[in-house]
Amino acid sequence: MNYPGGIKKEKAYKTSTTNDSNLSHKNRGMTLEAELNSTNEYYREIDKAYIYKKPTPIKIVKVDYPSRDKAKINEAYFTIPSTTDYNGLYKGKYIDFEAKETKSKTSFSLTNLHTHQIQHLKNIDNHNGIAFIIVRFTSLNETYLLPARTLITYIEGTDKKSIPINLFKEKAYLLKDNYMPRIDYLKIVDILIGGKNNA
Amino acid sequence: MNYPGGIKKEKAYKTSTTNDSNLSHKNRGMTLEAELNSTNEYYREIDKAYIYKKPTPIKIVKVDYPSRDKAKINEAYFTIPSTTDYNGLYKGKYIDFEAKETKSKTSFSLTNLHTHQIQHLKNIDNHNGIAFIIVRFTSLNETYLLPARTLITYIEGTDKKSIPINLFKEKAYLLKDNYMPRIDYLKIVDILIGGKNNA
Repeated sequence: MNYPGGIKKEKAYKTSTTNDSNLSHKNRGMTLEAELNSTNEYYREIDKAYIYKKPTPIKIVKVDYPSRDKAKINEAYFTIPSTTDYNGLYKGKYIDFEAKETKSKTSFSLTNLHTHQIQHLKNIDNHNGIAFIIVRFTSLNETYLLPARTLITYIEGTDKKSIPINLFKEKAYLLKDNYMPRIDYLKIVDILIGGKNNA
Repeated sequence: MNYPGGIKKEKAYKTSTTNDSNLSHKNRGMTLEAELNSTNEYYREIDKAYIYKKPTPIKIVKVDYPSRDKAKINEAYFTIPSTTDYNGLYKGKYIDFEAKETKSKTSFSLTNLHTHQIQHLKNIDNHNGIAFIIVRFTSLNETYLLPARTLITYIEGTDKKSIPINLFKEKAYLLKDNYMPRIDYLKIVDILIGGKNNA
């Protein structure tokens, strides 16, 4: 498996912050990942929520120890993540989500999610966690939060390999750009928590 | 920073499972990490809890793409973890813990935990998550679950750089070896959840 995406994203972010002429959309060229990291950092600073991006899973093959205090990894490979990228704690609730960008203007391809990531989101939802995906349509500059329950219901009821943008427009929550935090997704999580408590 | 521990542990585990003469203690030479991974896998199989070990945090410096489908990391370094190693969901509750082994028979050195890991456990406890550490005294073959609240109270009330074994004997929960799951720590988590709900 190949996961160049994460690496490329980091590079793109670094480039865009040091060279304003490269800005591609109004949120100053920050990737979704960078905006979520910044948002989560803000939530931690104001003691609101403790949600982190997990480290990229890697299989380490060879490590050298040039000195006692330094280990250098000389050979490693990206591995398939078992779960989602983000999880943590908010208002005593377990929060779990995956975030993806797509260039498509019409649909979100399900190849963006691994089968076991979808199963994981289903497990979390079944066990009273707050599970969702955040999808940014970069060409439209629209970012949506789609609850796991809606995602699973759609997937289990279709043979299609993608989710049309209309499903997002109708059943997901639009996340607007902010200054601080960049993407205030906990506003939507508040709605989801309210729904679960009333269910 | 150097984190050879995680790597060595994996090697030790692999060796011990293929060579029985290397067994060092009665739990067949499995490291605490290997036993917890096996336990968490069991919990997932019986749909009881979804708790995972996070990937080791790594700073990737150089990646090659020998072919379109393969990325090879040629240079990377271990970085300091911001949080704990394990987190997940059980009975709708956010679970978060760190696991450590020590060879000492008398105390657990606080150098085993980073300052921000201790702060993290405190944050989680404050926000109604279930936070704790699991410590194995390998020379005694005793494994304890120490609630974060007890850990924090001790640390904030002392100048000592280690926790004496007596604190574990008096205020922690002894985790007995099992066949399946290896370390049934959710039994203790049930007690902690009960205490929180009554608090």
